Amino acid sequence: MAKTAIKTHPTASRKPAPKFVYDFEEGGADMRALLGGKGAGVAEMTKAGMPVPPGFTITTQACLTYLRSGGFAAGMLEEVRQHLGGLEERAGKRLGDRANPLLVSVRSGAAFSMPGMMDTVLNLGLNRETLEGLAQRTGDRRFALDAYRRFIQMYGRIVLGIEAELFDAELEQAKKSAKVSSDAELSPALLEKLSDRFLAIVEEHTKEPFPEDPWDQLTRAIAAVFDSWNGRRAIAYREFNHIPNDLGTAVNIQAMVFGNMGSDSGTGVAFTRDPATGERRIFGEYLLNAQGEDVVAGIRTPQPIDTLERDLPDVYRSFADIAERLERHYRDVQDMEFTIEQGRLYMLQTRTAKRTAAAAVKIAVDMVAEKLISKEEALGRVEPDQVDHLLHRAIDPKAQVRVLATGLAASPGAATGAAVFDADRAEEMAKAGKKVILVRIETNPDDVHGLIAAEGVLTSRGGRTSHAAVVARGMGKPCVAGTEALKIDLNKRRFEASGVVVKEGDVFTIDGSTGRVIQGVVATIEAGVSGDLEKLLKLADSVRRLRIYANADTPEDARRARLFGAQGIGLCRTEHMFMQQDRLPYVQEMILAQEIGDRQAALAKLLPFQRADFIGILEAMKGLPVIIRLIDPPLHEFLPNHDELLVEVTQLRDSKKAGKKLARAERMLAAVEELREQNPMLGLRGCRLGLLHPEIIEMQVRAIAEATSELRRQRVKAVPEIMVPLVGAAEELRRSRETIEATLKSVAREQGVRFDIKIGTMIEVPRAALTAAKVAEYAQFFSFGTNDLTQMTYGVSRDDAEGSFLRQYVTDGILPSNPFEHLDPDGVGRLMGFAVKEGRATTPDLEIGICGEHGGDAQSIAVCDKLGLDYVSCSPFRVPGARLAAAQARLAGGAAKDV
Amino acid sequence: MAKTAIKTHPTASRKPAPKFVYDFEEGGADMRALLGGKGAGVAEMTKAGMPVPPGFTITTQACLTYLRSGGFAAGMLEEVRQHLGGLEERAGKRLGDRANPLLVSVRSGAAFSMPGMMDTVLNLGLNRETLEGLAQRTGDRRFALDAYRRFIQMYGRIVLGIEAELFDAELEQAKKSAKVSSDAELSPALLEKLSDRFLAIVEEHTKEPFPEDPWDQLTRAIAAVFDSWNGRRAIAYREFNHIPNDLGTAVNIQAMVFGNMGSDSGTGVAFTRDPATGERRIFGEYLLNAQGEDVVAGIRTPQPIDTLERDLPDVYRSFADIAERLERHYRDVQDMEFTIEQGRLYMLQTRTAKRTAAAAVKIAVDMVAEKLISKEEALGRVEPDQVDHLLHRAIDPKAQVRVLATGLAASPGAATGAAVFDADRAEEMAKAGKKVILVRIETNPDDVHGLIAAEGVLTSRGGRTSHAAVVARGMGKPCVAGTEALKIDLNKRRFEASGVVVKEGDVFTIDGSTGRVIQGVVATIEAGVSGDLEKLLKLADSVRRLRIYANADTPEDARRARLFGAQGIGLCRTEHMFMQQDRLPYVQEMILAQEIGDRQAALAKLLPFQRADFIGILEAMKGLPVIIRLIDPPLHEFLPNHDELLVEVTQLRDSKKAGKKLARAERMLAAVEELREQNPMLGLRGCRLGLLHPEIIEMQVRAIAEATSELRRQRVKAVPEIMVPLVGAAEELRRSRETIEATLKSVAREQGVRFDIKIGTMIEVPRAALTAAKVAEYAQFFSFGTNDLTQMTYGVSRDDAEGSFLRQYVTDGILPSNPFEHLDPDGVGRLMGFAVKEGRATTPDLEIGICGEHGGDAQSIAVCDKLGLDYVSCSPFRVPGARLAAAQARLAGGAAKDV
Repeated sequence: MAKTAIKTHPTASRKPAPKFVYDFEEGGADMRALLGGKGAGVAEMTKAGMPVPPGFTITTQACLTYLRSGGFAAGMLEEVRQHLGGLEERAGKRLGDRANPLLVSVRSGAAFSMPGMMDTVLNLGLNRETLEGLAQRTGDRRFALDAYRRFIQMYGRIVLGIEAELFDAELEQAKKSAKVSSDAELSPALLEKLSDRFLAIVEEHTKEPFPEDPWDQLTRAIAAVFDSWNGRRAIAYREFNHIPNDLGTAVNIQAMVFGNMGSDSGTGVAFTRDPATGERRIFGEYLLNAQGEDVVAGIRTPQPIDTLERDLPDVYRSFADIAERLERHYRDVQDMEFTIEQGRLYMLQTRTAKRTAAAAVKIAVDMVAEKLISKEEALGRVEPDQVDHLLHRAIDPKAQVRVLATGLAASPGAATGAAVFDADRAEEMAKAGKKVILVRIETNPDDVHGLIAAEGVLTSRGGRTSHAAVVARGMGKPCVAGTEALKIDLNKRRFEASGVVVKEGDVFTIDGSTGRVIQGVVATIEAGVSGDLEKLLKLADSVRRLRIYANADTPEDARRARLFGAQGIGLCRTEHMFMQQDRLPYVQEMILAQEIGDRQAALAKLLPFQRADFIGILEAMKGLPVIIRLIDPPLHEFLPNHDELLVEVTQLRDSKKAGKKLARAERMLAAVEELREQNPMLGLRGCRLGLLHPEIIEMQVRAIAEATSELRRQRVKAVPEIMVPLVGAAEELRRSRETIEATLKSVAREQGVRFDIKIGTMIEVPRAALTAAKVAEYAQFFSFGTNDLTQMTYGVSRDDAEGSFLRQYVTDGILPSNPFEHLDPDGVGRLMGFAVKEGRATTPDLEIGICGEHGGDAQSIAVCDKLGLDYVSCSPFRVPGARLAAAQARLAGGAAKDV
Repeated sequence: MAKTAIKTHPTASRKPAPKFVYDFEEGGADMRALLGGKGAGVAEMTKAGMPVPPGFTITTQACLTYLRSGGFAAGMLEEVRQHLGGLEERAGKRLGDRANPLLVSVRSGAAFSMPGMMDTVLNLGLNRETLEGLAQRTGDRRFALDAYRRFIQMYGRIVLGIEAELFDAELEQAKKSAKVSSDAELSPALLEKLSDRFLAIVEEHTKEPFPEDPWDQLTRAIAAVFDSWNGRRAIAYREFNHIPNDLGTAVNIQAMVFGNMGSDSGTGVAFTRDPATGERRIFGEYLLNAQGEDVVAGIRTPQPIDTLERDLPDVYRSFADIAERLERHYRDVQDMEFTIEQGRLYMLQTRTAKRTAAAAVKIAVDMVAEKLISKEEALGRVEPDQVDHLLHRAIDPKAQVRVLATGLAASPGAATGAAVFDADRAEEMAKAGKKVILVRIETNPDDVHGLIAAEGVLTSRGGRTSHAAVVARGMGKPCVAGTEALKIDLNKRRFEASGVVVKEGDVFTIDGSTGRVIQGVVATIEAGVSGDLEKLLKLADSVRRLRIYANADTPEDARRARLFGAQGIGLCRTEHMFMQQDRLPYVQEMILAQEIGDRQAALAKLLPFQRADFIGILEAMKGLPVIIRLIDPPLHEFLPNHDELLVEVTQLRDSKKAGKKLARAERMLAAVEELREQNPMLGLRGCRLGLLHPEIIEMQVRAIAEATSELRRQRVKAVPEIMVPLVGAAEELRRSRETIEATLKSVAREQGVRFDIKIGTMIEVPRAALTAAKVAEYAQFFSFGTNDLTQMTYGVSRDDAEGSFLRQYVTDGILPSNPFEHLDPDGVGRLMGFAVKEGRATTPDLEIGICGEHGGDAQSIAVCDKLGLDYVSCSPFRVPGARLAAAQARLAGGAAKDV
């Protein structure tokens, strides 16, 4: 181009004006971002030659321009007018034509489904004049009048922002005065009156008459859809669901078809397969002589789709054919809306169907068998969380229930039992053969024997990763946590919720899959691992790179883990073993010992217990690795509660009876205060304990070694590994390892055997990750303890924060999610990345895994896969989901690599 | 070289055999690693032509070879024999020569001074025969006999490992039987008998006779010196002082000279300048007719060196000349040992002199004036810690004191006052005009008003960075912390130590510079900032790059900080202001408010107090920046103590009098329990408080803005900056900043002014450092809160750990030092490095400093300088030391760059 040309035509170099409007024929499934989900769906169907009422879509881009500039984009209205012309031509009707008026629907449709936005305006184009045309053309004046009053009502509410109640009240009044009970019984005369009243309401509230001009109606409706993107509810919804604000919504304008034009008309929704079971058959419901909103309103009960075959066999056949084509086209189950107008079928929408966990698994596996999808696609069709749901007893969905309160769904499954308010009593009643549910404000390690005895646990405080939740999930027991509406009175042994009092012994039910607390006994159904799930997980196993381990502290847990496909134990906590009633006295004796001799004597009494524990677990996992963590929690957790002791001592002092009891209580209080810490999470625990009292480690390592040797005599292959917790400096690990190796050598010498037991460390202190190159000099494996690592990286105590500011943070969107549920890739993940890279630089064959709660979370597993970990370890019930998640991570990772 | 040659002479390609022995003439000051400190020192003097008795040094390398192989290095003994020959020639005597025997001293001497090692064997070479030769040559048989028995005694003890007490007992017995009180009075006959007894003791304990052959004596002595490197005490000493184990020790063999050969002989030690004051004059003491060990044993009182000028003027003159030369040669004050043998002066050792803080400063400044050293060298001659000592009252070193116990020297200076055991009482007594010392097991923020009232504080628990220590240092008050020997009985208001009971009101003294707790009143001396210190700090200011800020919460602190040279306030904590008695009720009202309205009302009452606080500080610092941190600690710190409340409630319940008092106590207890956290360090505090209750921030920011505006009216330039604590995610800072800016805008509008107040954040949560690139988007400055950053990076609670495992860790060498005292460069420092680099990448003009306790620690300041920080902030009394440390860091950094 010549320079002079540029100079004289400064606009000549501009980009061509953007196209703001697309006929359905022009769009397609791949234009979701520009046309929204709904627009892309109808366009795709149109292109595929399916019977879709003609129409066009105004793009999200037009919406964004409108929102930015406060007015329609230059040229947009012209485009709309032009496409409207085309639509009029195809429909053989014209908008505003008195004789043969075109009516259209106006629907919003963003790229993501967004319930917070403007929905649908039907019958747009009606006014006093076109109303008559419609009456004449259809030969049904009542139909036309009803369509008109519906239009004013919807337009008034949705576009003009008038409260729905005003119209509803008028409608009720009309029915009352006519002494009829349904809208359909209203006479034409009454409907005419009603639309007059509706028009008056509009004028009263907008201070101007209802727009009569159809073009005016249309442009205002378009503007209203655009504006709805920034409506209060839409913004809140996006914030909550982390949908970006700069996407905008499209607007779909489509010729109306009517399902309410007689018994050969109708409307319905259907799925290409059963979304509850996954069975391959058309599943859905419809209403004859009705519009979509009637289905939604639930005034008449819809029919199951099967009877359509009898009612309108031709229509059914063509629908079944379309459904089949749509499923093949989209290669997934479709959720479709349709309308039948006087014997003609029209498709209004199609989208991927939501489905239950069981259905998702069956559909995925079936579609592979049908060669409709690849196994990689099948693996992406099931959420790992859904797998969890398949493994637990569930409340029978058909059961009638009275919900007393709703807490956090902290560990899935349903449990029914007698309420019990302390752990000892739980154990007692369970021993007496009673099923119980432990109810506590929150739990701590003292309550573990009660948790073991109970069917499930209910707390009023704490989050999904609170002690109760974690332990319950580990045990595969249902847990509802943080049920704030619960008023628990531990003294009176009762709780109250929704005005109902549940006393000790009263039977009630919890549903850990939904968080519901339900009065009385409720029927439950056994879900179990179905054959389809097994097939799916086998597929997953053939794809994933990460090994899946389980966290298990008992032989029972270990057996369950193995059953669910665990390839090892990634975390065997030894302290839960200490908590059991038969050992606790020796543990306390050990803690209170003043002299090393006394401590060793107490430890000697614990040794046989620990040895037996390890024999049990190692035997259950024979041939597979079991990573045993040395004692971790602060010692005061094994002593009586401080505050209770303080109250006891104070009372005894006041009673002046004093004596031995007081002296004993005072001694214990002094011991507890001696060990008490302001921040126990950051105190004397983990390897610090072992470095100060090596005799504890020696006992534990001896128990491991003796158990291994005993099993070897029984020809059972035991593969224990020893893990040192809470290392922050390489020197801590070096010295701990010295003690461990010396003990192993002693036992080896005594028993005349050789041990080949790996020694490694948790990486749970930020400094360990930052100095991993050094730490790895003394480690054969690293295991990320991401619970603690998250606590310290964020400076957030999980115990304190989940019920308090952390929950608020997530609600307010300060944090995208609870970092104790989903691994934080930017902070914690970055530290992990250092440890992986620098640890392996020192020790190339370093095995690296994760054993925090994140090990069972799909999002976190994806991070672990990307970081190059060797395994993830999670509670036994999360193992199947983790197997799937690891496969998904691999597939996503493969794709990510190409980017 | 031909291939065949290599084949036939496989040793031909070896390195030349190392040289293991150096004559003093061959060595020098730069060979300290090979010859040890002592060997290098005498060699340097010998080369400079000073009168040093001839000798030679066996290298540390020979020692290492010996230790590795268990025998002398090949060729070493030949070298020794050869150098001994040279020594004999120079001395004109021969080892073992009956007529004219050479006697030598054998001394160990490592590169670092190591008291744990073998010391000195004198008079080696004596036996029954040479003894006679010595007697004849000196004409003094008694002298020879005395030398002989001393030799057997020293050799027996040091080389042969016989307990000193055995010889001492024999010597005592001899004196007793002769009825004399000093060794010198023993007759030759008795001395002869005594050596026979000593020889018998040796034979009895070693099962072999005392080595008669001088060469045998010598080689065994050399081996003993080598072995002493791995002696138990030496290893412990090295471990404690972090001296590597692979250095080895040298052995010095030197011809004996005798200071005990009459009144023209003598021995002494002297300094080239007064090591107490730094005054430029020879300072030292000597004994005539004595050997070095007599001086050490303290049997006779030495004379001040001045009288030597009168006693032996020629000797004095040549000594003074040598001293002058040595100082010029080494360019530092020397600590010298000398012996005079029959009118001839011999120099035995010279080394750099230890000196007091005051002397160090004066000497450094003087030597620059004398053009002896450069200003850069002068800055390296004073330890920043020493500067601290110059700023506080000190116990008069001449005072006689009874030390009751010794704790940690936690905040320097001496204080005398009446013992008082709680903060309220301290305030009360102080108001009544009494000087008090607050005695607590440990302190917490509740005690701050007591600390303010007291002259100093004494605790039985907690380390150098415990609450008491930190607050005391901040206030410049003496503190002795962690005095474990103290038995404090708070109920009886008394403590006991060393059998002495100190009751409330009893006057005693603490010395925070040494950790001593002293009975009664002790004389103190005012040290103050001397003119020399000022000169030195001016030098430092001209060199350093880092700015020095102070942490100050009150106008008084601010004024003091400025006086000491602070260039701004790096941390102004607002919560200490909340703790004051007149505000605390409103603070509690604010915390306990159930409705936001009530909370705002309480905050409105606090506003005038805060505004006044800020006016005071900003005025004191006029023209300089004051970084104000918004409220940080968990709210329960402002409420009564939980356990005390629990006891009160229990007692009231028991008393059955119940009533209003019980109800009130129960309400408060409930509130405290509501806010109570398991790990408050990781709980609801810092910016989390402000995000949940923005009205608190709004009040504080309003107070800052109004104070600024008020001062502007008074034409005072106030430069506040606002700091958001405990940020872990960029979004926290973004939202906090929104609130701050909105409040600033409001006040600006109300007052018709404009504010230009910087907003920044603490980096104290590891995640903030890891995501600094994002955090910096909303920050104008970063301030490292290294106390918390260290706590979280290590997973160690300072409050809990310093008294427990952390102290043990440092003692055991698991950690090289307490990371709360010296910044950990590998973990915490690495995080800081990320934040500096990535923060500045986002915001190039980001100001970065540190405001943790490390800001006053020289080692940590060096890390900060290397990291490229802009400033360090520390307590006012540490500002002068920090100025010096920053200069030293710069000088070291410059050097480091060349490496």
